[in-house]
Amino acid sequence: MSNFTIKATRAPVVGVFDSGFGGLTVLRALAEQMPTARFIFLGDTARLPYGSKSQRTIARYAAESARFLVEEQQAEYLVVACNTASALALDAIQASVAVPVLGVIEPGAEAAAQQTKTGDVMVIATEATVASHAYASACRGHGLHGIEKACPLLVPLVEEGWIEHPVTEQVVRIYLEELEAEARAAGQNPDTLVLGCTHYPLLRGVLERSVPQGVKVIDSAEATARRAAAAMAERAGTCAVETDEPHIRCFATDSVAKFERLGSRFLGQPVGTVELVDLGG
Amino acid sequence: MSNFTIKATRAPVVGVFDSGFGGLTVLRALAEQMPTARFIFLGDTARLPYGSKSQRTIARYAAESARFLVEEQQAEYLVVACNTASALALDAIQASVAVPVLGVIEPGAEAAAQQTKTGDVMVIATEATVASHAYASACRGHGLHGIEKACPLLVPLVEEGWIEHPVTEQVVRIYLEELEAEARAAGQNPDTLVLGCTHYPLLRGVLERSVPQGVKVIDSAEATARRAAAAMAERAGTCAVETDEPHIRCFATDSVAKFERLGSRFLGQPVGTVELVDLGG
Repeated sequence: MSNFTIKATRAPVVGVFDSGFGGLTVLRALAEQMPTARFIFLGDTARLPYGSKSQRTIARYAAESARFLVEEQQAEYLVVACNTASALALDAIQASVAVPVLGVIEPGAEAAAQQTKTGDVMVIATEATVASHAYASACRGHGLHGIEKACPLLVPLVEEGWIEHPVTEQVVRIYLEELEAEARAAGQNPDTLVLGCTHYPLLRGVLERSVPQGVKVIDSAEATARRAAAAMAERAGTCAVETDEPHIRCFATDSVAKFERLGSRFLGQPVGTVELVDLGG
Repeated sequence: MSNFTIKATRAPVVGVFDSGFGGLTVLRALAEQMPTARFIFLGDTARLPYGSKSQRTIARYAAESARFLVEEQQAEYLVVACNTASALALDAIQASVAVPVLGVIEPGAEAAAQQTKTGDVMVIATEATVASHAYASACRGHGLHGIEKACPLLVPLVEEGWIEHPVTEQVVRIYLEELEAEARAAGQNPDTLVLGCTHYPLLRGVLERSVPQGVKVIDSAEATARRAAAAMAERAGTCAVETDEPHIRCFATDSVAKFERLGSRFLGQPVGTVELVDLGG
């Protein structure tokens, strides 16, 4: 992109928000699907993790973040790149801003519906997402049976950088064995595993090696990006016009250094400079 | 304690504060040392973990918590039962309240000084505590050489309840081997391991089995409780008068259910009802 490009039409602005930087895996999928859009990402790192907090608190935090993206950053479309916030606060976010809001749960359930033959779906996620039963509910909406398991050690293992690590292999094996045993005990025959946390795509290799043969691993991020791209394509003025604005701009409420250090692992490219923003929390 | 006890003198009120409920291991030690004191514990669970946040944010959160304990709960003495807050925000806390404030770092370093023969001390803690080098600095004040290591997986392992678990044994072994190799490379001969996080006393069994023979494990909580008891004994009106006020009263800013469920494991007795408080974060 050059400084001499004529800005005839503004590129569409998509706001992407997460409690931390795990949502950068969703942003990565979005940028692949929408190469000409402009993305504003906000990681509410001062108040992460949302996964262990109450619904009331998560809804308040998420609405504040959404308003920052829409009111201060002029986002025209909002992707909640956080399973916990999608599970517990989608209504609150939709009520707090005047633009369309897409969470990651429904696209994940939809992708599972397209993939499964048995109709039995396993979901791994954080404690709060599982406690909400948002995936089980979304699966039911597609006529599927979803069985969910909280895997609280996986996020810290990813953040420790133990991606291809014997400890991570062992932890994943324990969690999946418990989940499969529970599914069998309920008379189910799952053939699909949904990654219900934005950190988990980094463990995709370990997870694919650890699931029983024939079980497909589904990343909500990809499903969400396809849905968002389709919605944006329907909007006016979203044609592929280049601008000299940065393609991706990242904000965080704290821990910019950690965001910059670990973020590229999630985004699949350097995150660049992360700007600090104070939401008053 | 009976409802007919005459309240001749109020028992001293000790405020204890942590980002979560790990500090209950410190409260447990305090209650053992001061059986007649009244304790008000505040876990700032809405904003945990402090360990991955910046100094500025931690200082603001900690000062708000401290003011709640002193101004609203009339604490006459404050124990910062959180290594990260002690490392990064002790000055800010002391500046925000008018009562004596004790952190856990200095008592831990003092206990190490009483224990070590070689003068070389290993410290395991959260990322933020290690990044602050507060233990290395406190060790230097006692003429010791402290070598610190962040062990970010240990808190989630404790909270998952994997206390005596092969995965935890393996993680502890990896961390300690890395720490010992680093100490040897620096020409040191450590004979002491300080637990620089309030969650770690629950792993004391695993840690004591995993350190090389002759290495002593030191729990900052016990050292802190001894120091606090000595300070309170010097104050007037702290004699053993019984009251019908609850001995221990717990507040949290969020996740009361998780606090109540896991807290007893840290406190060594039921935590009872945890009261929700909103600090506006």
